[in-house]
Amino acid sequence: MNKPKPAIETLASLGKKIIQALRENRYPVLEIPDRRTSNIVYDENSNHYVLGPSQNIRDSSNVKHVKRFAQLTWVASFAKELLQASRTSSLRDLYYTSEAFGVGFSDQSESDRIVTDLECLTGFPRESFGIYPEEHSSIYGEVVMRYTVSGYEGKEIDLTVSPDGLPVGPALMTAEPLESKAEIVLAVESGGMFSRLIETKAWKRFNAVLVQLGGQPPRSTRRLMRNLHVFLGMPVYIFTDGDPWGMHIAKVITSGSANSAHIKDLTIPDAKWIGVTPEDIVQYSLPTEPMSDADLKRLDELSQDVRYSEPDWQNHIQQFKKIRNKAEQQAFSKFGMDYVVDAYLSKKIS
Amino acid sequence: MNKPKPAIETLASLGKKIIQALRENRYPVLEIPDRRTSNIVYDENSNHYVLGPSQNIRDSSNVKHVKRFAQLTWVASFAKELLQASRTSSLRDLYYTSEAFGVGFSDQSESDRIVTDLECLTGFPRESFGIYPEEHSSIYGEVVMRYTVSGYEGKEIDLTVSPDGLPVGPALMTAEPLESKAEIVLAVESGGMFSRLIETKAWKRFNAVLVQLGGQPPRSTRRLMRNLHVFLGMPVYIFTDGDPWGMHIAKVITSGSANSAHIKDLTIPDAKWIGVTPEDIVQYSLPTEPMSDADLKRLDELSQDVRYSEPDWQNHIQQFKKIRNKAEQQAFSKFGMDYVVDAYLSKKIS
Repeated sequence: MNKPKPAIETLASLGKKIIQALRENRYPVLEIPDRRTSNIVYDENSNHYVLGPSQNIRDSSNVKHVKRFAQLTWVASFAKELLQASRTSSLRDLYYTSEAFGVGFSDQSESDRIVTDLECLTGFPRESFGIYPEEHSSIYGEVVMRYTVSGYEGKEIDLTVSPDGLPVGPALMTAEPLESKAEIVLAVESGGMFSRLIETKAWKRFNAVLVQLGGQPPRSTRRLMRNLHVFLGMPVYIFTDGDPWGMHIAKVITSGSANSAHIKDLTIPDAKWIGVTPEDIVQYSLPTEPMSDADLKRLDELSQDVRYSEPDWQNHIQQFKKIRNKAEQQAFSKFGMDYVVDAYLSKKIS
Repeated sequence: MNKPKPAIETLASLGKKIIQALRENRYPVLEIPDRRTSNIVYDENSNHYVLGPSQNIRDSSNVKHVKRFAQLTWVASFAKELLQASRTSSLRDLYYTSEAFGVGFSDQSESDRIVTDLECLTGFPRESFGIYPEEHSSIYGEVVMRYTVSGYEGKEIDLTVSPDGLPVGPALMTAEPLESKAEIVLAVESGGMFSRLIETKAWKRFNAVLVQLGGQPPRSTRRLMRNLHVFLGMPVYIFTDGDPWGMHIAKVITSGSANSAHIKDLTIPDAKWIGVTPEDIVQYSLPTEPMSDADLKRLDELSQDVRYSEPDWQNHIQQFKKIRNKAEQQAFSKFGMDYVVDAYLSKKIS
């Protein structure tokens, strides 16, 4: 899945472009797709955010631009070094590595921003350069991945190899899905639910690869699910807590976020949110907690959000507003340990 | 390592004791080791907290006790059900399961407290009953574990099977360490450092099993490290951020916490904190951040803490107070990607 060659070639040609300008006694200039809100548009056809045509100029002859220009050049050279050495780096490590080079990031949020600049400029997500955040999700199920990292080149690993699942770390992110006995992807919000579905052999019963999202999942996990969907034809089901935040986890998987509008091939428009919906809360008489002010405010925001324009989603929002209560996915435990599998998920997935 | 039989027998005899009292027309009474601060004593010989001799009476004839008595009985019966079915539950799930039984926990912190009561009463940690929190650490290295969970009974898994490491989930927690090519345990605070040490093959170079603590680690991770230490004779090294919180991660591993004073076999008195010490911050000229008020306040607390009474630890605290700066373990990246392995850890571990 990872394409080190095109990524490294893109970085090399970026370097050549800069050097050529210098040799011709010109100040190098870069054009970077503009990712300000005004240039983020919602593509109704594909149902996700994309960048519009506006471009930003980063002109090294402009004293206001020169710092960000130099920072971007340094991040690009660091990325090239990583690829050449087949190494990875966390965003945190990148920030600290920069300190030796006087690149002048005032904090990590600034270096993170320049990494995003490099993504926009090259069209490659930072994962293609081996740059990752620290958070991990987990995965478990009968799918075979072919690994590419050093020491594991070409090794085929079945993702049921450990009964606790595997973390979606740098190695798995760059592995290639080969084949799957499982037929669907079932993504769940919490680690407790993930463990329960492994233990009850729900993965076998539903023929599912289980993914633990761990809240709003890192991009690498969304990409892994998308790869299973696109390359192995597996439908994706998302099971979250029954509150605006859980619902929005599903929405970001289907329709993306403004923050990643510059990244291609990340959304799964066909993925399905199976619950906990506000209708489920009522129908199953789940134990609930009253919504907080923050929950209600979030519902108001989502009701205005272009991604929620379809009637089904607007209905969920209205229903949440009506009941003013929320429920966790663990709430089904009230009816016994296996109820969530035997009754709820069975019905939702069939 | 897990001993389902003694745990289930203890629960059964608890039940018999209660039933016998009822048959004899007596109100059942339970004696629970008192875990209030006044009964938590620091054992200078073993260098960790233990409970003193004081006991609490839970008397079912006392209307003030009857609710907690009933809650404790329910948690015990739930634990027995888990063991009989070879199942596990998160603390969260236990809380929600209770809702169907009218046990009347007002929130999860209340059910968590009753689980601790059961630990005190039986002398078994909740892990022995299959009850876990949600957080996980990770592990990677050349050690072979024999699993016991359903579907993996007797299976021997080498913990280098996945290049991203394995989560320390319910299955691994109950597995038995069989043999190890590695000679030491190297525990690190952050996921970024864990990935780096795998990738640079530092585990091979130092003959180390790597453990990612993920901040203050869950008890199950401390127990796993202790098992490697006790049963395979591996020394334990702890590498954290250079701040009071990182130092205290190491301290809890060596000397335990008041919260787990009622749990046996959890501390590793010989484990060694290798840094980042305040002395390292100065010696290596690491990039630092100034300490916050919370950091400085924490140092004051730790300087009064009985676990820090030895001169070496007092020196670290004084040194931190002097420099009033802190550094992350990632800070070594300033000197290049491999410096932390080639220079720093090489020196510290040799």
